Amino acid sequence: MSKFLHSKFKSLEPYDTSEELESMNGYIRLNTNESPFMPSPLAIKYAYESAKGLNYYSDPDCRLLAEKLSSMLNIKPSQIVFGNGSDEILNFIFMGLCEKGAAFPDITYSFYKILAKFHGVNYKLIPLKNFRIAPDDYKNLQARTIFIANPNAPTGLALKLDEIEKIIISNPDSLIIIDEAYIDFADSLSAIKFIHEYNNIIITRTFSKSRSLAGGRLGFCVTCEEIANDLRDIKNTITPYNINAMTQAAGLGSLEDDDYYKENINLIRTVRESTKINLRKMGFEVTDSETNFLFTRHERLTGQEIFTHLKQNGIMIRYFESLPEFNRITIGTSEQMQKLLNCLAEIV
Amino acid sequence: MSKFLHSKFKSLEPYDTSEELESMNGYIRLNTNESPFMPSPLAIKYAYESAKGLNYYSDPDCRLLAEKLSSMLNIKPSQIVFGNGSDEILNFIFMGLCEKGAAFPDITYSFYKILAKFHGVNYKLIPLKNFRIAPDDYKNLQARTIFIANPNAPTGLALKLDEIEKIIISNPDSLIIIDEAYIDFADSLSAIKFIHEYNNIIITRTFSKSRSLAGGRLGFCVTCEEIANDLRDIKNTITPYNINAMTQAAGLGSLEDDDYYKENINLIRTVRESTKINLRKMGFEVTDSETNFLFTRHERLTGQEIFTHLKQNGIMIRYFESLPEFNRITIGTSEQMQKLLNCLAEIV
Repeated sequence: MSKFLHSKFKSLEPYDTSEELESMNGYIRLNTNESPFMPSPLAIKYAYESAKGLNYYSDPDCRLLAEKLSSMLNIKPSQIVFGNGSDEILNFIFMGLCEKGAAFPDITYSFYKILAKFHGVNYKLIPLKNFRIAPDDYKNLQARTIFIANPNAPTGLALKLDEIEKIIISNPDSLIIIDEAYIDFADSLSAIKFIHEYNNIIITRTFSKSRSLAGGRLGFCVTCEEIANDLRDIKNTITPYNINAMTQAAGLGSLEDDDYYKENINLIRTVRESTKINLRKMGFEVTDSETNFLFTRHERLTGQEIFTHLKQNGIMIRYFESLPEFNRITIGTSEQMQKLLNCLAEIV
Repeated sequence: MSKFLHSKFKSLEPYDTSEELESMNGYIRLNTNESPFMPSPLAIKYAYESAKGLNYYSDPDCRLLAEKLSSMLNIKPSQIVFGNGSDEILNFIFMGLCEKGAAFPDITYSFYKILAKFHGVNYKLIPLKNFRIAPDDYKNLQARTIFIANPNAPTGLALKLDEIEKIIISNPDSLIIIDEAYIDFADSLSAIKFIHEYNNIIITRTFSKSRSLAGGRLGFCVTCEEIANDLRDIKNTITPYNINAMTQAAGLGSLEDDDYYKENINLIRTVRESTKINLRKMGFEVTDSETNFLFTRHERLTGQEIFTHLKQNGIMIRYFESLPEFNRITIGTSEQMQKLLNCLAEIV
């Protein structure tokens, strides 16, 4: 640490990227919930065309993207704010919209806690009940900003719309973030329709999972115009050109090729269900995931034992030190999942 | 403003992007110091190839880029930190390395003041003398972090290496940022060699200007390993995957195609000098710019009059409300500059 680092950052807890870096060395990557399918032909084509004009700055308002997306979601373009991944939107929210503190489940997307600590936001952890978010526990939160990943990670479990609405209604003084990174894989419905009814909610979404653009870094949020303007003001103050031109183009192509992604999503859902059944036969407890990953616990083997065996055989899954019995396994292609099952059969 | 916006952000002063947005409507864009030349064939090719693999996350450490750049700059890869534009690096510095305040020239890159205000950093403005940074005035700065754009914007004027070193030596307790966004267009030399001698300096650079990647968003800084680790820790805490895969690929291609850019830089420098001579003949005072833009003042017409006339004729240059006599004109192709001169001949 240099002597110049601000004293408030003396105990930074950076995200550990070492496993991701290693997984890039030829492993079957089932550790970061990426899509096994490449972006659509149109996404690639648009990105390529835009590369020729990179000498010019990208559109700071992502206007083409905003127009296309707004018509698909039946909202105004001005209600959308884009981020360098939905992580950037979350960063803006923790930075600027959490003055009264935050609240989120004790087991959820790990980035919430990292961002809360970084921005000095006091946070309250609300325990899951039997691995589910319990809407009744989201009360008396003193205007804290509430973060609900729906479906939740790493459990994969989702709330129904009436449960989401219950949390909104119980917390009229709070801003409520519904993080729908995995909603495209869910049976449960998006809360986006509540945008027309409530002015204290933000829905965040990403192109990283269902739209095969993890490496492109594109996320967005949808909210009322007033909150969207706040987020845009923060964005335009610190990073006016946050989304590069190729990513804007690839994102637009992916929206125009919507059927391609719907097909991929269906494939992933089908493989998820068959993998779940096979894992259960092998002695795994597996939640009814509504995402592109499975949350598993074996009756005999620890999460680390399973992780290590697979890694030694060229397959990278996720193991959490804080949840030592569990693993999170991304759904890849059916061939990849067959390899996973074959490999697991050697030890279970 | 929503009721959820943090009270410290009640008077945000976002960067006004309206002019950039308008300039995208078919104008000859001489307003944002972009290169008129497209990226190199290799940069485009690499970006295209990487687009096919966007379903996977990008390398959080930009390892290929860091290796190539480190060998070109004769430093270690670990001394480089990449940003989503060099603006992101500047944001990290104002966020995390300015506890004792900041100091920068009163006329310089406008983003320094915007970032200082945003992060609540107390800043001291040091007046230019006859439009030049006066090294003797950078003393007794009480460990403030010092920002020197070299060459400076919008004046286009550069300090020599011994003048830069004088500022470093006079401020042993300060961190000194040397922002070399335009150094590739300069006769003056880069301060990068001081990296081996001083552990209180950061050199920032961008691919936006000389490397034709403004729309790709890629910048970096070079510093001692200790400070690089601080910046990387901040980066990995809030935005581990800040550089998308296509931009990493385009950046690598641009470094491998170095001769292409050297040729473009030479062209821009030649056009800059001829344009300067022609403007002076037309009654403009023009500084001896070492950048890809000219800083001009006409003997009779105001900056706004010139801006408006050119805009009405499809050419966008820069006009500053705070410097009403002046304009900043990006160097485009020789054809574009001829159009500019023809258009100016109608009014001067």
